[in-house]
Amino acid sequence: MRILGIDPGIAIVGFGFIDKEGSKLVPVQYGAIQTDSKTESSLRLKQVYDTLGELIDRYKPDAVAIEKLFFNKNVTTAFTVAEARGVMILAAVQRGLPVAEYTPLQVKQAIVGYGRAEKKQVQEMVRIFLKLSAVPKPDDVADALAIAICHAHSYLLTQKINEVVKR
Amino acid sequence: MRILGIDPGIAIVGFGFIDKEGSKLVPVQYGAIQTDSKTESSLRLKQVYDTLGELIDRYKPDAVAIEKLFFNKNVTTAFTVAEARGVMILAAVQRGLPVAEYTPLQVKQAIVGYGRAEKKQVQEMVRIFLKLSAVPKPDDVADALAIAICHAHSYLLTQKINEVVKR
Repeated sequence: MRILGIDPGIAIVGFGFIDKEGSKLVPVQYGAIQTDSKTESSLRLKQVYDTLGELIDRYKPDAVAIEKLFFNKNVTTAFTVAEARGVMILAAVQRGLPVAEYTPLQVKQAIVGYGRAEKKQVQEMVRIFLKLSAVPKPDDVADALAIAICHAHSYLLTQKINEVVKR
Repeated sequence: MRILGIDPGIAIVGFGFIDKEGSKLVPVQYGAIQTDSKTESSLRLKQVYDTLGELIDRYKPDAVAIEKLFFNKNVTTAFTVAEARGVMILAAVQRGLPVAEYTPLQVKQAIVGYGRAEKKQVQEMVRIFLKLSAVPKPDDVADALAIAICHAHSYLLTQKINEVVKR
């Protein structure tokens, strides 16, 4: 099963494709979509939508996991990121993919085991889980992989619960 | 020149197409796109995107004007509306249409002449400007028409300024 994790944004969108092979997690491709702040905001939305769609078409994930927005001090920025989140969810839904959403707290709990974990701890766990030699940069990429791993773990847990229920 | 005004939302999206013929404003089509709260949120985004795209293709506006989001007490609702706003802007940009954005204050100033105008005053002015027998319902439709009129007025003003500059 292939999962696409997304750390939403408008200047930088982190993305990470991972394969869940049994209980093993394998990184497939990861990086960041970047848009120029000098470009008109509506065109930046289109850039994010187009590029994410191309990535989905190329790497063909089975599911998409995206971080939920948290209340931010800068409301204007938060609204802009929410607009970008809208077009990213659209790109996934148009391809018939299920979209799961996780709060930053849920991601930290899934990766480190508790919700107050530091950003660095999360990133180091991402590196270990995916057997990478270094933490991917920028932070948005590591965050996107964390979201994908969070979904893989939630999915594993659901499977285990289903097995227990079946017995 | 045909203008599409949009009052963004996820449960109800008000829309209004108006023609600006010289200084005269003529209503072309207006109404509301509605989505069911029981439908998954990602599918509601797709419904809004698809329906708005169909409306744009049918009524072929030259420009789109959409209300800017204002900080709302309910942040979750505001984020959801921002996501919907994202897919609506995308639908316009994909068709090469310019997208103008106005704050509620700017709309009120353009329609009634001052920013603290009551909602009812704005709606009554929309009715008078467009020579309608009654205020369109629900409120989102009247709001969408107000945004379209606001854009028509701003456009007229820009034209006048340009004429003065040219002399």
